Amino acid sequence: MAKKVLKFGGTSVGSIDRIEHAANIVKREQLNGDKIIVIVSAMAGKTNELIKHSQLISKEFDKRELDVLLSTGEQVTSALMAGALNKIGVKSKSWMNWQIPILTDGEHSNSRIINMNVEKIEKFLSDGGIAVIPGFQGISKSGDITSIGRGGSDATAVAVAKIFNTDSCEIYTDVDGVHSTDPNKIPVAKKIDKISYEEMLELSSVGAKVMQSSAVQTAMMYDIPLQVRSTFTDRKGTEIFSKESIDYSKSVTGVAYSKDDAKITLIGVEDKPGVAADIFEPLGKKQINVDMVIQNISSDGKTTDLTFTIKREDLTKTLNILKDNNRIKFKELNSNDKVSKVSIVGAGMVTAPGVTYKMFRALAKVNINILAISTSEIKISVIINEVDTLNAVKKLHTIFDLD
Amino acid sequence: MAKKVLKFGGTSVGSIDRIEHAANIVKREQLNGDKIIVIVSAMAGKTNELIKHSQLISKEFDKRELDVLLSTGEQVTSALMAGALNKIGVKSKSWMNWQIPILTDGEHSNSRIINMNVEKIEKFLSDGGIAVIPGFQGISKSGDITSIGRGGSDATAVAVAKIFNTDSCEIYTDVDGVHSTDPNKIPVAKKIDKISYEEMLELSSVGAKVMQSSAVQTAMMYDIPLQVRSTFTDRKGTEIFSKESIDYSKSVTGVAYSKDDAKITLIGVEDKPGVAADIFEPLGKKQINVDMVIQNISSDGKTTDLTFTIKREDLTKTLNILKDNNRIKFKELNSNDKVSKVSIVGAGMVTAPGVTYKMFRALAKVNINILAISTSEIKISVIINEVDTLNAVKKLHTIFDLD
Repeated sequence: MAKKVLKFGGTSVGSIDRIEHAANIVKREQLNGDKIIVIVSAMAGKTNELIKHSQLISKEFDKRELDVLLSTGEQVTSALMAGALNKIGVKSKSWMNWQIPILTDGEHSNSRIINMNVEKIEKFLSDGGIAVIPGFQGISKSGDITSIGRGGSDATAVAVAKIFNTDSCEIYTDVDGVHSTDPNKIPVAKKIDKISYEEMLELSSVGAKVMQSSAVQTAMMYDIPLQVRSTFTDRKGTEIFSKESIDYSKSVTGVAYSKDDAKITLIGVEDKPGVAADIFEPLGKKQINVDMVIQNISSDGKTTDLTFTIKREDLTKTLNILKDNNRIKFKELNSNDKVSKVSIVGAGMVTAPGVTYKMFRALAKVNINILAISTSEIKISVIINEVDTLNAVKKLHTIFDLD
Repeated sequence: MAKKVLKFGGTSVGSIDRIEHAANIVKREQLNGDKIIVIVSAMAGKTNELIKHSQLISKEFDKRELDVLLSTGEQVTSALMAGALNKIGVKSKSWMNWQIPILTDGEHSNSRIINMNVEKIEKFLSDGGIAVIPGFQGISKSGDITSIGRGGSDATAVAVAKIFNTDSCEIYTDVDGVHSTDPNKIPVAKKIDKISYEEMLELSSVGAKVMQSSAVQTAMMYDIPLQVRSTFTDRKGTEIFSKESIDYSKSVTGVAYSKDDAKITLIGVEDKPGVAADIFEPLGKKQINVDMVIQNISSDGKTTDLTFTIKREDLTKTLNILKDNNRIKFKELNSNDKVSKVSIVGAGMVTAPGVTYKMFRALAKVNINILAISTSEIKISVIINEVDTLNAVKKLHTIFDLD
């Protein structure tokens, strides 16, 4: 008898019909003889509606009360799911976080799960019951309701899988699984059957957000096998494992891209220790997230050129901070907000030499100019002009045999 | 420094604007130097929406899960109210029932409050905070979420007033207070300044349901002074006290009526001990609520005629039960579902002889036929033809100086 976590996202429980459909999936799994814990998100749109309510009162609505407010979204779904299961003859109970309890640490609206009591639920599972737990929330040591950030139901699912030591953790969502690139834009995109946590993290940062990244990181840390699959088809989804468990026949697993980047270049920066810190510390303090950083030594040997990318929405703020920064000197400050980032991702890349050149040659063949390059063990990213994005993705998808 | 309970009903918190308005009322009361506990209902329409959700799944939705579902309604309002108070500079916190806790006894969806812990909230009040508590709910001894029946926020308000030993309990609603009759139908209806619990109970059973009856009963039992007042005007509402504290200048306080009755007469029933029990026991077992019962000895001295009223919706069911009842014998069975009940209510009635005849004469003057009569210490009710209802109410309202 296996023990499983089944997590249903917002669109999967977005209406009463869909909740009943999800309940039937749970029943089918139980008929396989498995012990099941169900994690549910708020019904699609519900959390945004509650946030809107709070913002009508104040843009800086009290954070403690915001958690009390938002936690009702998943509570509603939990009760409806448990009711729907009982209706079709499956013994079920909803368990609020304070009833378990699920303990969290950290600030309101951004807590993390640190522990949960397994005793009562394990007993209920052994008695043939199905436990339904609202995702995204917990209680603090002082007994307040807390939430673990938007999309946090994935994090709840992974934490429950870890602490209850389940055999698997299945994430039911509105897509078939993880794709080799964005299926909405690139029709030849293919569903990936197996993928490593690391690749998943790189791919999930683009296109369809299939799973919350921090939940994937937690699963990776504790080696919890995940499955992402569609609530609406019976097709097999994507299995997410550790790199070691995957046999890579292809060097590249997928092509990711993002179109909300901006590029900044500082020309003629003094080349001395501490200059990078002087540049980036003031940005970090203002919550500006720097993505790629590329540094070249310039011809004179005394100065350097430094290029980095940020979210496009942060561009004006970033330029102002750089101009006001007395600790750094530079000759010129350039920026470009019409760029995108295209990445090839693959855990097999590390053992397949030549992937980098193959990527660059492919882009050159279709006359796409590379503005910046950054590489890691499982990813090569290039910054290109935004207009070239889809062309580049298509070309790379083909050249690496993903079509 | 007084300690007060302020309770806001569904329409008083029916939108964000209204919640903010209610928060300003609370702030004004606090500026008077009072310690305040706020009880809130679900936003108007919210509970019905949640019930509808559950009924789409099953007409017999699991009762435990229904309480989990419905309790989110008041939780949402509590968080929004506490947030709105903090926004206008009033220190406030929402307290869920499990955080206090408020302990209940009895079945799901029909529990009653048996105790609550006052320590943490008393401390918070002493520190200048305003506690916001969701009405209508509690937790059972086994730690499940329970609800105390529809309209149960009034019951929560009275229970909190009792257990926290507050100086008053103010019920904010969408009407000015308790009226001498239904102000929507009889324009000369007047707001009553002071009324006894008993009269309130008799009047609240008709027309505008200003307060939940069981909450008034609890207040009566523990002698907790109530005030019913409008959220939307500054006018003084109705104060509800014990009979002894009220100085009655008028014998009649109000005229009540209901239009959902049916009358049944059994003619020629055997007049022997136990016959009434034989008639009514089978009805009680089928949850049929019998209201007025009138019995006359018939001319032959051996049989009797028995008239009683029930809810109109129960008529067919009741007639079938009577026909199938082998334990009773009768000559004839008549019924009339086009009747209404009109009552004059007044605690001063008991010391004012002649009220009964004054009532009957007034009705006779406008040619209204009385089909049945029933009297109690503070109420005289007559059954009349439904078409005569408003005429009768107007006439009685005038004759007893209520216009």
